[in-house]
Amino acid sequence: MTDHGLEQLVKPAAAAEPKPIEKVSIVISKGSLEGIYPGLIMANGARMEGMEANVFFTFFGLDAITKKRHNRIKVATVGNPGMHIPTIVGAIPGMSFLATKMMSRKMEKLDIPPIPEFVEMIADSGAGVYGCKATVDMFGLSKDDFVPQVTGVITVGEFYEKAAGGEIVFT
Amino acid sequence: MTDHGLEQLVKPAAAAEPKPIEKVSIVISKGSLEGIYPGLIMANGARMEGMEANVFFTFFGLDAITKKRHNRIKVATVGNPGMHIPTIVGAIPGMSFLATKMMSRKMEKLDIPPIPEFVEMIADSGAGVYGCKATVDMFGLSKDDFVPQVTGVITVGEFYEKAAGGEIVFT
Amino acid sequence: MTDHGLEQLVKPAAAAEPKPIEKVSIVISKGSLEGIYPGLIMANGARMEGMEANVFFTFFGLDAITKKRHNRIKVATVGNPGMHIPTIVGAIPGMSFLATKMMSRKMEKLDIPPIPEFVEMIADSGAGVYGCKATVDMFGLSKDDFVPQVTGVITVGEFYEKAAGGEIVFT
Repeated sequence: MTDHGLEQLVKPAAAAEPKPIEKVSIVISKGSLEGIYPGLIMANGARMEGMEANVFFTFFGLDAITKKRHNRIKVATVGNPGMHIPTIVGAIPGMSFLATKMMSRKMEKLDIPPIPEFVEMIADSGAGVYGCKATVDMFGLSKDDFVPQVTGVITVGEFYEKAAGGEIVFT
Repeated sequence: MTDHGLEQLVKPAAAAEPKPIEKVSIVISKGSLEGIYPGLIMANGARMEGMEANVFFTFFGLDAITKKRHNRIKVATVGNPGMHIPTIVGAIPGMSFLATKMMSRKMEKLDIPPIPEFVEMIADSGAGVYGCKATVDMFGLSKDDFVPQVTGVITVGEFYEKAAGGEIVFT
Repeated sequence: MTDHGLEQLVKPAAAAEPKPIEKVSIVISKGSLEGIYPGLIMANGARMEGMEANVFFTFFGLDAITKKRHNRIKVATVGNPGMHIPTIVGAIPGMSFLATKMMSRKMEKLDIPPIPEFVEMIADSGAGVYGCKATVDMFGLSKDDFVPQVTGVITVGEFYEKAAGGEIVFT
């Protein structure tokens, strides 16, 4: 391949076609609607392209797979200038509820399901759904607290093992 | 190269020189000044090193490439303990404006341009600038709402295709 | 390898054993307790598995390696719906202090050290600890402001060089 006579022939082909991504391992670490959706959308997109996908929920991201919480995830209306809502207004009780309703309705129109159904859909498509052992222990949770789609509660070391050969996306 | 007689010679060389990164694909998902700058700085740094760089704007990160908004991006003064401002103070109307002015002035001294110019500079240097189709649809935006540097509005699947052979950095 | 007679034999082996991850380069960009811990936990996990690990502190993440600040890092109680605290309550002076105490105590029970000790431990284990030049300049800091574990203050380009051959994890 390093034969200089072939350079023109070989180089462009090599540059034009990098090896497609075969696997993504997505970490979801935030507990807000706008913190959880990007990771789920990226996992779903990966599965739709036939890539292997694993989703690893850690810190407040665990809410997305916790039975008591996954139906009650909200948009952050303060500390998020992207919402274009002044802090004083965003802090009014009920504002987060309103913003959440609004975003959920927009998601629905685009056929993006609510978080519980989205996690189910991703798991059904063959993605791995994992909880992070360190934060599961920290929050005093056990496997029973999680939705049945959770394949396991794993350590960071086990996460790296599963992620080998692919891209890590921390959200 | 796997001839065992050469092991001492070959191994250190292999360990010392991993293949340089050839491409980075950066996702910008947040709409605050401190949420947008790191991705732009990493894209710019990549181009300066001669690496291929693509920037993919999603969720509130879309503000950075939206004509009506890219001049009005602010620092989050609440929900960000890193600002060292008590929440009660950070919530005072105008505080975010002040903090934004302060950070912008510091950026200017370092020759880091404001966001609109920075996006232009990165695009001029040859980086790809993309909007995320799912969130563009969700926010009801169209290509006309974006600055001319936006090369296209693409799906997650298309993003993965472009990212092949490089590193994904989600910010 | 593309000999079709060998397909059954070759394919499963290739799919089952991707090359283990050899290196992770972790960027810590946030200044809250829940923004800093995930990166430190991932760096520590990488070292425990024998992987090379570099941690690169940028923007508000610099607090974790700044002598005057690393003992005073707090949980964000507003703008973080994952905390399950209404904004109005989260904004009460002292709430962030209480939430921080609570999380720190839980961390301690799990043998996860406070941030200053954690950075020390990771450095002692052989991980590289770096500050980001652009933000160090922006905040007007110098090497003396940092804990002794900081190996250097480097540019984005130097970060990419160090990250070559591994995964980049931006937190």
